[in-house]
Amino acid sequence: MTKNKKQKLKARIPRGFIDRSAADIRATDKMISEIGKVYQKYGFDPVETPMFEFTDCLGKFLPDSDRPNEGVFSLIDDDEQWMSLRYDLTAPLARHVAEQFNEIQMPYRTYRSGWVFRNEKPGPGRFRQFMQMDADSVGAPGVQSDAEMCMMMADTMEALGVPRGDYVVRVNNRKVLDGVMEAIGLGGEENAAQRLDVMRSIDKIDRFGIEGVRDLLGAGREDESGAKTKGLGLDEKSIGNILSYISSGISGASVDSIQAESKVEDDNIYELEDTQYFNSNKLTMNSLRRSEVSDYAEDGIRELDQICDLVTAAGYGTNRIRIDPSVVRGLEYYTGPVYEVELTFKIKNEKGQDVVFGSVGGGGRYDGLVKRFTGQPVPATGFSIGVSRLMTALKNLGKLDSTDILAPVLVTVMDGNEMGNYQKMVQELRNANIRSEMYQGNWKKFGNQLKYANRRNCPIAIIQGEDERTTGEVQIKDLIEGKRLSEEIEDNVTWRESRPAQISVRRDELVDAVLKLLAQQAEDRENKPE
Amino acid sequence: MTKNKKQKLKARIPRGFIDRSAADIRATDKMISEIGKVYQKYGFDPVETPMFEFTDCLGKFLPDSDRPNEGVFSLIDDDEQWMSLRYDLTAPLARHVAEQFNEIQMPYRTYRSGWVFRNEKPGPGRFRQFMQMDADSVGAPGVQSDAEMCMMMADTMEALGVPRGDYVVRVNNRKVLDGVMEAIGLGGEENAAQRLDVMRSIDKIDRFGIEGVRDLLGAGREDESGAKTKGLGLDEKSIGNILSYISSGISGASVDSIQAESKVEDDNIYELEDTQYFNSNKLTMNSLRRSEVSDYAEDGIRELDQICDLVTAAGYGTNRIRIDPSVVRGLEYYTGPVYEVELTFKIKNEKGQDVVFGSVGGGGRYDGLVKRFTGQPVPATGFSIGVSRLMTALKNLGKLDSTDILAPVLVTVMDGNEMGNYQKMVQELRNANIRSEMYQGNWKKFGNQLKYANRRNCPIAIIQGEDERTTGEVQIKDLIEGKRLSEEIEDNVTWRESRPAQISVRRDELVDAVLKLLAQQAEDRENKPE
Repeated sequence: MTKNKKQKLKARIPRGFIDRSAADIRATDKMISEIGKVYQKYGFDPVETPMFEFTDCLGKFLPDSDRPNEGVFSLIDDDEQWMSLRYDLTAPLARHVAEQFNEIQMPYRTYRSGWVFRNEKPGPGRFRQFMQMDADSVGAPGVQSDAEMCMMMADTMEALGVPRGDYVVRVNNRKVLDGVMEAIGLGGEENAAQRLDVMRSIDKIDRFGIEGVRDLLGAGREDESGAKTKGLGLDEKSIGNILSYISSGISGASVDSIQAESKVEDDNIYELEDTQYFNSNKLTMNSLRRSEVSDYAEDGIRELDQICDLVTAAGYGTNRIRIDPSVVRGLEYYTGPVYEVELTFKIKNEKGQDVVFGSVGGGGRYDGLVKRFTGQPVPATGFSIGVSRLMTALKNLGKLDSTDILAPVLVTVMDGNEMGNYQKMVQELRNANIRSEMYQGNWKKFGNQLKYANRRNCPIAIIQGEDERTTGEVQIKDLIEGKRLSEEIEDNVTWRESRPAQISVRRDELVDAVLKLLAQQAEDRENKPE
Repeated sequence: MTKNKKQKLKARIPRGFIDRSAADIRATDKMISEIGKVYQKYGFDPVETPMFEFTDCLGKFLPDSDRPNEGVFSLIDDDEQWMSLRYDLTAPLARHVAEQFNEIQMPYRTYRSGWVFRNEKPGPGRFRQFMQMDADSVGAPGVQSDAEMCMMMADTMEALGVPRGDYVVRVNNRKVLDGVMEAIGLGGEENAAQRLDVMRSIDKIDRFGIEGVRDLLGAGREDESGAKTKGLGLDEKSIGNILSYISSGISGASVDSIQAESKVEDDNIYELEDTQYFNSNKLTMNSLRRSEVSDYAEDGIRELDQICDLVTAAGYGTNRIRIDPSVVRGLEYYTGPVYEVELTFKIKNEKGQDVVFGSVGGGGRYDGLVKRFTGQPVPATGFSIGVSRLMTALKNLGKLDSTDILAPVLVTVMDGNEMGNYQKMVQELRNANIRSEMYQGNWKKFGNQLKYANRRNCPIAIIQGEDERTTGEVQIKDLIEGKRLSEEIEDNVTWRESRPAQISVRRDELVDAVLKLLAQQAEDRENKPE
């Protein structure tokens, strides 16, 4: 063989993209299947759109993408039109509905899972290709649809094994938020940009707390490293109004005592975090009704009231669905109720501190998104779950189903001229539905074959050398027992009599013997003491 | 509401991309799951790569992409490097293996399904985004791995319900093909381009037949419309050699009598098509051994011989796996055995003629693909199934599993003030695992609610107006029976006593009554005469 003198190509992957392992793929598939079952029970059916859309059809609704053309992957097609890879699953759904408007039966209740792309700076746990799973009701004008979404998110968490109390669906209404801003003089088309800035500041409450938001709305914020973020420069009274509003859901909160950690003994108050108590939905609604807001906001408050009534009627308490005026959602296109599902259990952050896991999905009402195409309003509401992020959460909870798939039985190759015989063995095993393979590497080094079986966790190896062939026999090596025996020498643990690690059977008994041994191993897995 | 005076955006989708329906998605998911089960039984595990790769890592191996940068979607990343969307699943796998070379246990046996992208002219059934499902053994030097792939393709077809006889896996070897070309003076690096041209001409045998290939290799071909394709201008003897070789698998074939439709009564001859008889693998191999080829080709013939022995040992006859020297496979990177799975049943083409359905997948050995990165040869073999194309085929065979998911039970809304009560009903139904929903459109027109239920094929509608609420009852409307009764008036068909199309039950009996009615409907579906 001639040596390749050419410059070698470096095998590398663009940043923000990753390869997925078998365990990851199996767990994701299982999770998506479970979520799909919940959505189907609610009456939703799958519908999917392709990866590409015309750029103008997608629109620019990404959070934090103030610069034009930022955030999406785009290219010019042959016909000189700009195409982009979808950045979420909602904008393409709006295009789909508008395009098929006359064929679609409204309300149109659909779900989908798929990859979306963001041309942003990747970071830990932050990728440029990631998976979302969405559900949407299009042509659904009433808040009963928003209420349904909230209940479906709660049911989804429980279907995945997240215990009640470890998650909460938080609900707000953009109309109320807009009403608060109108009341402080930020109403009207001319203040749209500033309203967006205020919302983005509020949205950082998870990271910076109420005081951080206060700084962002006012003079600006300086982080630990000394880096400064410019503030919006609102006056004290306006800031007070906003903070009072967004903290209406926190027990005992007022503009002055937002960080006071009062412990209130009251059935109506729901304890979620060690240092903070949340009002019951009833108390929050009472507090909201006392807020200084415009008429527009009254409408939003009425809608939140209805959502409360509906979820209560269906048996969902404040411990599952909670009115929380600090919920904003980053996307610009929401027009009414917004909601998100937060996982409330603690994990360690990179500094070793205990922090709440946080949001794994959310959505809201987007009555104007289809209208961009049709000219007439098409009311719609829906949410998106961040599949990878939710999977990380389930891993933390020990609830990730990694679907125990056994490694294959390995038929080893002792003699290249007898390959047909080994092939026949593996065929017989597969015909009996036993996961199995003939060794496919260079068979001449037998040690490599056993090393391969070992690294892949194969349960059994089949061996037939010249001696066995002559006597019409075959060796069955119990690799699990072999490992146990070698470990016992160190551990001195015995929980049952040991089996022979290798047995010899007649060639025609191969399949039966393997089936029997696999059954014994399965029994051991069930009975094994931890 | 102010009327939108702005120019409306046109909802449209880039050509060559499509939205997918619920039936399509469910059928695909089912199919992929079935295929995955076969691959897993053979010992393969899932591994996936992202949509994007660096353009240089992907390489340019697309068929018919003589023009540089044609065929793929590419863009420049922030760091000025070119990225492309993957055009198949093999090139990214080679990158993955090279990048993880030290972590991966060889032989590395994996499978994956996913979207791939071709920036080509779309046509009927030809999309710019489509799904492939691949399996590969990397670090597997022997032809036993190629033989395994062929058997796995055959098993996959049967697992999907394609009857034996309606498919065949056809196998060839690039080494033999190269040897034939060497023998007619087309060996060596300097003739690489021309060899590729010859292969592409041979690859058109399905569309143009042997005589068409003869024209393409010689003076050129004129189609029915008068459009001309330039020929390669080979001399008569060279053309004869090539045609003789590629038709070695056809019974009674010779350079002169290729289209003779001789009927040979012989156990060794396998009848596949009405007008053509194929040799048994043994006869084909005998014919190949008599061909005028170089030493290099001898190697390839020996490999084909071994494949024959192995698949025969495992019980796969010529009716499942057939040596066929006319198989080429379009991709440039194959270095040894190539194979494809063809569906042999007839469908009507656009002209109404009966034609064989054709290839739904294929692959081959690509020992050089990982070497581009590692500098050392890493032997590998694998194949790809065209998921959408295979689905079309299964639809034709009536074997497409569209997984009968029942539409939801519809709880209608008669009074907006009683929404909480309706919500409670739907919650009770869902808690009993009954697929159901409360009507989410504008409830005020009751006719729309029943029209919705009808169009969506809802099995049951629940109705509670003021009267029923007062008496503590609820109406259960059997929409299936309702349809049957209205159809009977026209058809006058009765196969059982009719049920009442609507019953009234006590509110607390709602769930039980719905369960009972769903069970009756299920029984009807089973018993209904066709």
